[in-house]
Amino acid sequence: MANIILTGDRPTGKLHLGHYVGSIKNRIKLQNEGKYDEFYLMIADSQALTDNFSNPKKVRDNVLEVALLYLACGIDPHKITIFVQSQVSALTELTFYYMNLVTLNRLLRNPTVKSEIKLRDFGESIPSGFLNYPVSQAADITAFKANIIPVGEDQLPMLEQTREIVHSFNRIYGDVLVEPKEVLPEVENARRLPGIDGKAKMSKSLGNCIYLDDSDEEIKRKVMQMYTDPDHIKVTDPGKIEGNVVFTYLDVFSKDDDFKKYLPEYHNLEELKSHYQQGGLGDVVIKKFLINILIDVIKPIREKREELINNLDYVYDVLKKGTLKAQEKAQETLVSVKEHMGLDYFSNPQFLEDMKDYFQNN
Amino acid sequence: MANIILTGDRPTGKLHLGHYVGSIKNRIKLQNEGKYDEFYLMIADSQALTDNFSNPKKVRDNVLEVALLYLACGIDPHKITIFVQSQVSALTELTFYYMNLVTLNRLLRNPTVKSEIKLRDFGESIPSGFLNYPVSQAADITAFKANIIPVGEDQLPMLEQTREIVHSFNRIYGDVLVEPKEVLPEVENARRLPGIDGKAKMSKSLGNCIYLDDSDEEIKRKVMQMYTDPDHIKVTDPGKIEGNVVFTYLDVFSKDDDFKKYLPEYHNLEELKSHYQQGGLGDVVIKKFLINILIDVIKPIREKREELINNLDYVYDVLKKGTLKAQEKAQETLVSVKEHMGLDYFSNPQFLEDMKDYFQNN
Repeated sequence: MANIILTGDRPTGKLHLGHYVGSIKNRIKLQNEGKYDEFYLMIADSQALTDNFSNPKKVRDNVLEVALLYLACGIDPHKITIFVQSQVSALTELTFYYMNLVTLNRLLRNPTVKSEIKLRDFGESIPSGFLNYPVSQAADITAFKANIIPVGEDQLPMLEQTREIVHSFNRIYGDVLVEPKEVLPEVENARRLPGIDGKAKMSKSLGNCIYLDDSDEEIKRKVMQMYTDPDHIKVTDPGKIEGNVVFTYLDVFSKDDDFKKYLPEYHNLEELKSHYQQGGLGDVVIKKFLINILIDVIKPIREKREELINNLDYVYDVLKKGTLKAQEKAQETLVSVKEHMGLDYFSNPQFLEDMKDYFQNN
Repeated sequence: MANIILTGDRPTGKLHLGHYVGSIKNRIKLQNEGKYDEFYLMIADSQALTDNFSNPKKVRDNVLEVALLYLACGIDPHKITIFVQSQVSALTELTFYYMNLVTLNRLLRNPTVKSEIKLRDFGESIPSGFLNYPVSQAADITAFKANIIPVGEDQLPMLEQTREIVHSFNRIYGDVLVEPKEVLPEVENARRLPGIDGKAKMSKSLGNCIYLDDSDEEIKRKVMQMYTDPDHIKVTDPGKIEGNVVFTYLDVFSKDDDFKKYLPEYHNLEELKSHYQQGGLGDVVIKKFLINILIDVIKPIREKREELINNLDYVYDVLKKGTLKAQEKAQETLVSVKEHMGLDYFSNPQFLEDMKDYFQNN
């Protein structure tokens, strides 16, 4: 069986370091390993509209923004098909038919949907489109016959919903859809990057993000205001590592080489942590170290992004070509789905023959 | 503004006399009056699947059956576009976006949906596709910019739902969708034709239907067993009109000419009723009269249907051409809908220009 990967992002804002660590880095890794047959990367604008339907401009403005960042981070459009969800009509048609296979109560019981609804303060006004987005995700996944879905733990119930739909469909209509499997991120990346204020999640509305196009100055300013250990007041005080955002970031980003380059007094992160815990190591030292490291990560992305902004026609073209390819693949699946449901009156010459028999015998 | 009519049936079984009286007769009347610009007649197979998803063959088998009956009843495909819902992909895409504009609670409060759910014994397992069928209907209606919808009273909440979607959409995205108005049947047809057992509704499962392809013998047999007045035992007994199915049918079908032809002892229905109420008029007389009248209605339909069964290629061709026309029209609306939502990245050259400005200013 072919190995087909599907993943994506909602275009509702600029991508930040949290996205980079949580998913983009992993995609680049998968891309470079090359152990797949097809790899689809979806800009999920239709899904973004399910809770931004009254602000379509926000979604529209961020489609190219996300594509830009993908390319700036090193996604290779020759290896990964980047496409825009709303331009692949077959996805909505699959959603429509899959909705027959999912009950209202099942949707309301989905833990991911439950917590997302809470988060959005919908109250008594849950849009039907939003409630059904797990069905729409099942359409996205199955349209491409994707069997490898890189997700975070919080997305597992969504994948479970897709598998249920696959089972129901195949049982009723015949074996058409492919069951997807999750690939959870490896341990080092599993940790969700906290905001610079120490809050669990980077979020635009909390103003605690480091963006992938932040200037060196912005990076410096943000790292200097990072939450560390509030009890570590004098340099000589012993400091805590746990909950200390600078060390959380260093855990994710620092390599031994970085020490050689920027902090040769230490061989590795263990030594640095141990000194910090003993006391005698100031926050400014560790912050400056992190600044250097983050600039090394972000600067090439930012510069590549600037370059691509001056070559938007290219980015647009990548997106258009990717979308065309995605349209073809999804259409193929849709045709097969409708064939198995018997909704192929005009494409299947057998239909008219069947009907001639039917009317002779009824 | 153009006058555009949309109406249709679910292909879940043969059409019966109830359909004829409740809708088909009215469609022929509208067709003959010709006071419209476009007239779409939809075979709603996708909608039928929302509560028949595990029995797709039933739906598939009845698509041509319904088309046959339409033509046999006198629907003129040059004046009315007959099409199959599932083959017009734009309808599912519109449904998808409209679902963002409707809340779950609004769907659950819809009186038509409520009673349909009860009727189907879904219990705790309401399929999401079924719950959302009012949204799908809104897509059907608005896709064709239909402003005239012939409906029964029980369908009014569905039309109200469509109007709400039209208002929301136009308010958020701009004036694109057309608000539909119901046309309720005239009084004489408003009465729902009861089953031959006197039950409120003809229904295949109750075995109380007269079908539009019933033989003369079947019509005779069914009328002879019709529910009349259980207290009208001897011919001399006074009889009741109310609840007497034979008279309900005569109210709908008998014309003064029928008396000249088949029952010249009476000038009109009033005289017949009055004699029945006084006593001295037996059920057999009124039943034979009704039999003659119903044969006059059904025989030409049945014979035309037989003829068309031997010319299924023609029926198929009508359906195919109608569907092509419907596809074009619905696609036009979809393009305009997506344009107004800003989902026109690849068809609107302005998008790339807008984005170039955007990145210069952000």
